[in-house]
Amino acid sequence: MAVEIERKFLVKADFVPDSDSQIEIIQAYLCADPERTVRVRIGGDNAFLTIKSKPEGISRAEFEYEIPVEDARQMIGLAVWPAIEKVRHLIDFDGKKWEVDVFSGANAGLIIAEIELSNADEVVRLPDWVAEEVSEDRRFHNSCLAQNPYCEWKNDR
Amino acid sequence: MAVEIERKFLVKADFVPDSDSQIEIIQAYLCADPERTVRVRIGGDNAFLTIKSKPEGISRAEFEYEIPVEDARQMIGLAVWPAIEKVRHLIDFDGKKWEVDVFSGANAGLIIAEIELSNADEVVRLPDWVAEEVSEDRRFHNSCLAQNPYCEWKNDR
Repeated sequence: MAVEIERKFLVKADFVPDSDSQIEIIQAYLCADPERTVRVRIGGDNAFLTIKSKPEGISRAEFEYEIPVEDARQMIGLAVWPAIEKVRHLIDFDGKKWEVDVFSGANAGLIIAEIELSNADEVVRLPDWVAEEVSEDRRFHNSCLAQNPYCEWKNDR
Repeated sequence: MAVEIERKFLVKADFVPDSDSQIEIIQAYLCADPERTVRVRIGGDNAFLTIKSKPEGISRAEFEYEIPVEDARQMIGLAVWPAIEKVRHLIDFDGKKWEVDVFSGANAGLIIAEIELSNADEVVRLPDWVAEEVSEDRRFHNSCLAQNPYCEWKNDR
Protein backbone atom coordinates (compact mmCIF):
# COMPACT_ATOMS: atom_id res chain seq x y z
CA MET A 1 0.00 0.00 0.00
CA ALA A 2 1.10 3.51 -0.72
CA VAL A 3 -0.29 6.74 0.63
CA GLU A 4 -1.26 9.24 -2.02
CA ILE A 5 -0.92 12.82 -0.86
CA GLU A 6 -1.71 15.27 -3.58
CA ARG A 7 -2.86 18.80 -4.19
CA LYS A 8 -4.99 19.65 -7.16
CA PHE A 9 -5.42 22.99 -8.93
CA LEU A 10 -7.38 24.37 -11.79
CA VAL A 11 -5.19 25.75 -14.54
CA LYS A 12 -5.49 29.25 -15.98
CA ALA A 13 -7.51 29.30 -19.19
CA ASP A 14 -4.68 30.74 -21.30
CA PHE A 15 -2.15 28.08 -20.31
CA VAL A 16 -1.14 25.74 -23.08
CA PRO A 17 0.77 22.81 -21.60
CA ASP A 18 3.79 22.16 -23.73
CA SER A 19 5.81 19.21 -22.59
CA ASP A 20 7.94 16.54 -24.18
CA SER A 21 6.42 14.02 -21.88
CA GLN A 22 2.76 13.38 -22.46
CA ILE A 23 0.61 10.33 -22.32
CA GLU A 24 -2.93 9.52 -23.40
CA ILE A 25 -5.01 8.15 -20.57
CA ILE A 26 -8.33 6.35 -20.62
CA GLN A 27 -9.73 5.40 -17.25
CA ALA A 28 -12.99 4.16 -15.84
CA TYR A 29 -14.42 3.17 -12.48
CA LEU A 30 -15.75 -0.20 -11.40
CA CYS A 31 -16.79 1.46 -8.19
CA ALA A 32 -16.72 5.03 -6.99
CA ASP A 33 -18.46 5.79 -3.78
CA PRO A 34 -17.26 8.10 -1.03
CA GLU A 35 -15.52 5.27 0.87
CA ARG A 36 -13.50 3.65 -1.91
CA THR A 37 -12.80 3.74 -5.63
CA VAL A 38 -11.71 0.99 -8.02
CA ARG A 39 -10.17 2.42 -11.17
CA VAL A 40 -8.99 0.79 -14.39
CA ARG A 41 -6.52 2.92 -16.31
CA ILE A 42 -4.80 2.53 -19.65
CA GLY A 43 -1.95 5.01 -20.00
CA GLY A 44 0.03 4.61 -23.20
CA ASP A 45 1.18 0.98 -23.36
CA ASN A 46 0.50 0.19 -19.72
CA ALA A 47 -2.55 -0.54 -17.67
CA PHE A 48 -3.25 -0.49 -13.96
CA LEU A 49 -5.93 -1.46 -11.52
CA THR A 50 -5.99 0.99 -8.63
CA ILE A 51 -7.93 0.93 -5.37
CA LYS A 52 -8.09 4.10 -3.31
CA SER A 53 -9.61 4.71 0.09
CA LYS A 54 -11.72 7.67 1.11
CA PRO A 55 -9.56 10.80 1.30
CA GLU A 56 -8.63 12.23 4.68
CA GLY A 57 -7.93 15.82 3.73
CA ILE A 58 -5.50 15.51 0.79
CA SER A 59 -4.28 11.99 1.67
CA ARG A 60 -5.59 8.54 0.96
CA ALA A 61 -4.46 4.94 0.82
CA GLU A 62 -3.68 3.65 -2.67
CA PHE A 63 -3.12 0.12 -3.93
CA GLU A 64 -1.97 -0.15 -7.53
CA TYR A 65 -1.30 -3.22 -9.67
CA GLU A 66 -0.13 -3.41 -13.26
CA ILE A 67 -2.43 -5.55 -15.37
CA PRO A 68 -2.52 -6.60 -19.04
CA VAL A 69 -3.79 -3.81 -21.31
CA GLU A 70 -6.26 -6.19 -22.92
CA ASP A 71 -7.76 -7.02 -19.52
CA ALA A 72 -8.08 -3.31 -18.81
CA ARG A 73 -9.80 -2.72 -22.13
CA GLN A 74 -12.37 -5.39 -21.31
CA MET A 75 -12.83 -4.20 -17.74
CA ILE A 76 -13.52 -0.66 -18.92
CA GLY A 77 -16.58 -2.25 -20.51
CA LEU A 78 -17.72 -3.25 -16.99
CA ALA A 79 -17.42 0.27 -15.62
CA VAL A 80 -20.28 2.12 -14.00
CA TRP A 81 -19.95 5.26 -16.17
CA PRO A 82 -18.32 6.06 -19.49
CA ALA A 83 -14.52 6.26 -19.44
CA ILE A 84 -12.65 9.49 -18.81
CA GLU A 85 -10.25 10.58 -21.52
CA LYS A 86 -7.38 12.95 -20.98
CA VAL A 87 -3.84 13.71 -22.00
CA ARG A 88 -1.42 13.96 -19.10
CA HIS A 89 1.51 16.32 -19.48
CA LEU A 90 4.43 15.99 -17.09
CA ILE A 91 5.91 19.38 -16.38
CA ASP A 92 8.98 20.02 -14.21
CA PHE A 93 8.72 23.07 -12.01
CA ASP A 94 10.95 24.03 -9.10
CA GLY A 95 12.28 20.49 -8.75
CA LYS A 96 8.82 18.91 -8.65
CA LYS A 97 6.96 16.95 -11.31
CA TRP A 98 3.54 18.43 -12.06
CA GLU A 99 0.91 16.35 -13.82
CA VAL A 100 -1.30 18.51 -15.98
CA ASP A 101 -4.37 16.68 -17.23
CA VAL A 102 -6.10 18.09 -20.28
CA PHE A 103 -9.48 16.40 -20.41
CA SER A 104 -11.43 15.64 -23.58
CA GLY A 105 -14.77 14.00 -24.28
CA ALA A 106 -17.45 14.82 -21.74
CA ASN A 107 -14.90 16.70 -19.61
CA ALA A 108 -13.45 18.82 -22.44
CA GLY A 109 -12.57 22.30 -21.27
CA LEU A 110 -11.21 21.14 -17.97
CA ILE A 111 -7.49 21.25 -17.19
CA ILE A 112 -6.32 20.10 -13.79
CA ALA A 113 -2.79 20.24 -12.40
CA GLU A 114 -1.77 17.80 -9.67
CA ILE A 115 1.29 17.62 -7.53
CA GLU A 116 2.21 14.66 -5.31
CA LEU A 117 3.65 15.52 -1.93
CA SER A 118 5.81 13.46 0.39
CA ASN A 119 3.80 14.70 3.35
CA ALA A 120 0.65 16.74 3.79
CA ASP A 121 2.55 19.74 5.15
CA GLU A 122 5.12 19.93 2.38
CA VAL A 123 5.38 23.46 1.01
CA VAL A 124 5.45 23.70 -2.76
CA ARG A 125 6.04 26.70 -4.96
CA LEU A 126 3.17 27.14 -7.38
CA PRO A 127 3.72 27.79 -11.07
CA ASP A 128 2.06 31.00 -12.26
CA TRP A 129 -0.24 29.02 -14.57
CA VAL A 130 -2.14 27.43 -11.69
CA ALA A 131 -5.36 29.03 -10.49
CA GLU A 132 -7.78 28.01 -7.73
CA GLU A 133 -6.89 25.05 -5.53
CA VAL A 134 -9.52 22.29 -5.66
CA SER A 135 -7.75 19.60 -3.61
CA GLU A 136 -10.71 18.98 -1.35
CA ASP A 137 -13.47 19.67 -3.85
CA ARG A 138 -14.86 16.22 -4.63
CA ARG A 139 -16.38 17.37 -7.91
CA PHE A 140 -12.89 17.42 -9.39
CA HIS A 141 -12.03 13.88 -8.39
CA ASN A 142 -11.79 11.85 -11.55
CA SER A 143 -14.25 9.38 -10.08
CA CYS A 144 -16.76 12.23 -9.73
CA LEU A 145 -15.98 13.56 -13.20
CA ALA A 146 -16.83 10.11 -14.57
CA GLN A 147 -20.20 10.23 -12.87
CA ASN A 148 -20.94 13.91 -13.38
CA PRO A 149 -18.80 15.15 -16.27
CA TYR A 150 -17.80 18.78 -16.65
CA CYS A 151 -19.94 19.32 -19.76
CA GLU A 152 -23.04 18.68 -17.66
CA TRP A 153 -22.22 21.13 -14.93
CA LYS A 154 -24.53 24.08 -14.71
CA ASN A 155 -23.07 27.57 -14.89
CA ASP A 156 -22.69 27.64 -11.14
CA ARG A 157 -18.96 28.15 -11.05
CA MET B 1 -9.65 -12.60 -18.86
CA ALA B 2 -11.06 -15.98 -18.05
CA VAL B 3 -14.63 -17.14 -18.24
CA GLU B 4 -15.95 -18.69 -15.07
CA ILE B 5 -18.62 -21.30 -15.69
CA GLU B 6 -19.78 -22.92 -12.51
CA ARG B 7 -22.68 -24.77 -10.96
CA LYS B 8 -23.48 -24.37 -7.31
CA PHE B 9 -25.36 -26.73 -5.01
CA LEU B 10 -26.47 -26.82 -1.44
CA VAL B 11 -25.00 -29.72 0.48
CA LYS B 12 -27.04 -32.22 2.47
CA ALA B 13 -27.15 -31.37 6.16
CA ASP B 14 -25.57 -34.66 7.26
CA PHE B 15 -22.53 -34.36 4.99
CA VAL B 16 -19.26 -33.81 6.78
CA PRO B 17 -16.63 -32.79 4.26
CA ASP B 18 -13.49 -34.74 4.97
CA SER B 19 -10.63 -33.82 2.69
CA ASP B 20 -6.86 -33.63 2.94
CA SER B 21 -6.98 -30.41 0.99
CA GLN B 22 -8.61 -27.56 2.79
CA ILE B 23 -7.94 -23.89 2.99
CA GLU B 24 -9.19 -21.05 5.16
CA ILE B 25 -10.63 -18.21 3.12
CA ILE B 26 -11.47 -14.67 4.12
CA GLN B 27 -12.94 -12.49 1.42
CA ALA B 28 -14.68 -9.18 1.16
CA TYR B 29 -16.16 -6.97 -1.53
CA LEU B 30 -15.11 -3.49 -2.57
CA CYS B 31 -18.08 -3.46 -4.86
CA ALA B 32 -20.92 -5.87 -5.42
CA ASP B 33 -23.73 -4.72 -7.59
CA PRO B 34 -25.59 -6.76 -10.18
CA GLU B 35 -23.29 -5.64 -13.01
CA ARG B 36 -19.85 -6.29 -11.47
CA THR B 37 -18.09 -7.41 -8.32
CA VAL B 38 -14.63 -6.57 -6.98
CA ARG B 39 -13.46 -9.13 -4.46
CA VAL B 40 -10.41 -9.27 -2.20
CA ARG B 41 -9.59 -12.79 -1.02
CA ILE B 42 -7.00 -14.20 1.31
CA GLY B 43 -6.77 -17.98 0.96
CA GLY B 44 -4.05 -19.54 3.09
CA ASP B 45 -0.79 -17.75 2.23
CA ASN B 46 -2.05 -16.17 -0.97
CA ALA B 47 -4.23 -13.23 -1.82
CA PHE B 48 -6.08 -12.21 -4.94
CA LEU B 49 -8.04 -9.30 -6.32
CA THR B 50 -10.82 -10.55 -8.56
CA ILE B 51 -13.21 -8.69 -10.81
CA LYS B 52 -16.24 -10.52 -12.15
CA SER B 53 -18.89 -9.39 -14.59
CA LYS B 54 -22.62 -9.91 -14.28
CA PRO B 55 -23.45 -13.59 -14.76
CA GLU B 56 -25.12 -14.73 -17.97
CA GLY B 57 -26.78 -17.91 -16.80
CA ILE B 58 -23.95 -19.82 -15.07
CA SER B 59 -21.10 -18.00 -16.88
CA ARG B 60 -19.30 -14.75 -16.29
CA ALA B 61 -16.08 -12.97 -17.15
CA GLU B 62 -13.43 -13.12 -14.46
CA PHE B 63 -10.17 -11.18 -14.06
CA GLU B 64 -7.93 -12.33 -11.24
CA TYR B 65 -4.61 -10.93 -10.01
CA GLU B 66 -2.41 -12.16 -7.20
CA ILE B 67 -1.59 -9.39 -4.74
CA PRO B 68 0.44 -9.15 -1.52
CA VAL B 69 -1.41 -10.63 1.47
CA GLU B 70 -0.73 -7.49 3.49
CA ASP B 71 -2.39 -5.34 0.80
CA ALA B 72 -5.38 -7.67 0.87
CA ARG B 73 -5.61 -7.41 4.64
CA GLN B 74 -5.73 -3.64 4.42
CA MET B 75 -8.17 -3.62 1.51
CA ILE B 76 -10.57 -5.86 3.41
CA GLY B 77 -10.82 -2.87 5.74
CA LEU B 78 -12.18 -0.84 2.82
CA ALA B 79 -14.90 -3.35 2.00
CA VAL B 80 -18.56 -2.45 1.87
CA TRP B 81 -19.69 -5.24 4.22
CA PRO B 82 -17.95 -7.46 6.79
CA ALA B 83 -15.73 -10.19 5.34
CA ILE B 84 -16.99 -13.67 4.58
CA GLU B 85 -15.21 -16.51 6.35
CA LYS B 86 -15.24 -20.08 5.15
CA VAL B 87 -13.15 -23.20 4.89
CA ARG B 88 -12.88 -24.59 1.38
CA HIS B 89 -12.52 -28.34 1.02
CA LEU B 90 -11.35 -29.73 -2.32
CA ILE B 91 -13.00 -33.06 -2.99
CA ASP B 92 -12.33 -35.28 -6.01
CA PHE B 93 -15.39 -36.94 -7.44
CA ASP B 94 -15.74 -38.69 -10.78
CA GLY B 95 -12.62 -37.02 -12.16
CA LYS B 96 -13.75 -33.52 -11.21
CA LYS B 97 -12.59 -31.26 -8.40
CA TRP B 98 -15.46 -30.10 -6.20
CA GLU B 99 -15.03 -27.08 -3.96
CA VAL B 100 -17.09 -27.43 -0.80
CA ASP B 101 -17.29 -24.22 1.20
CA VAL B 102 -18.19 -24.52 4.85
CA PHE B 103 -19.12 -21.03 5.97
CA SER B 104 -18.65 -19.64 9.45
CA GLY B 105 -19.35 -16.29 11.11
CA ALA B 106 -22.54 -14.65 9.89
CA ASN B 107 -23.03 -17.41 7.29
CA ALA B 108 -22.50 -20.34 9.67
CA GLY B 109 -24.76 -23.26 8.84
CA LEU B 110 -24.34 -22.85 5.11
CA ILE B 111 -22.38 -25.36 3.05
CA ILE B 112 -22.14 -24.80 -0.69
CA ALA B 113 -20.53 -27.09 -3.25
CA GLU B 114 -19.25 -25.62 -6.51
CA ILE B 115 -18.01 -27.26 -9.64
CA GLU B 116 -16.25 -25.44 -12.48
CA LEU B 117 -17.20 -26.53 -15.97
CA SER B 118 -15.31 -26.18 -19.23
CA ASN B 119 -18.52 -25.22 -21.01
CA ALA B 120 -22.06 -24.45 -19.89
CA ASP B 121 -23.43 -27.68 -21.37
CA GLU B 122 -20.90 -30.01 -19.76
CA VAL B 123 -22.64 -32.92 -18.06
CA VAL B 124 -21.34 -33.72 -14.58
CA ARG B 125 -22.19 -36.60 -12.32
CA LEU B 126 -23.39 -35.32 -8.96
CA PRO B 127 -22.10 -36.74 -5.67
CA ASP B 128 -24.90 -38.08 -3.47
CA TRP B 129 -24.14 -35.45 -0.82
CA VAL B 130 -25.29 -32.55 -3.01
CA ALA B 131 -28.85 -31.31 -2.63
CA GLU B 132 -30.72 -28.52 -4.42
CA GLU B 133 -28.96 -26.66 -7.24
CA VAL B 134 -28.69 -22.91 -6.60
CA SER B 135 -26.50 -21.89 -9.54
CA GLU B 136 -28.78 -19.08 -10.61
CA ASP B 137 -30.05 -18.07 -7.20
CA ARG B 138 -28.28 -14.77 -6.51
CA ARG B 139 -28.78 -15.05 -2.76
CA PHE B 140 -26.07 -17.73 -2.70
CA HIS B 141 -23.49 -15.61 -4.50
CA ASN B 142 -20.77 -14.83 -2.01
CA SER B 143 -21.18 -11.15 -2.82
CA CYS B 144 -24.84 -11.41 -1.78
CA LEU B 145 -23.95 -13.44 1.33
CA ALA B 146 -21.61 -10.61 2.35
CA GLN B 147 -24.47 -8.13 2.07
CA ASN B 148 -27.26 -10.34 3.39
CA PRO B 149 -25.67 -13.12 5.44
CA TYR B 150 -27.37 -16.46 5.98
CA CYS B 151 -27.93 -15.87 9.71
CA GLU B 152 -30.22 -12.97 8.84
CA TRP B 153 -32.41 -14.88 6.44
CA LYS B 154 -35.96 -15.39 7.56
CA ASN B 155 -37.38 -18.90 7.66
CA ASP B 156 -38.58 -18.53 4.10
CA ARG B 157 -36.66 -21.43 2.62
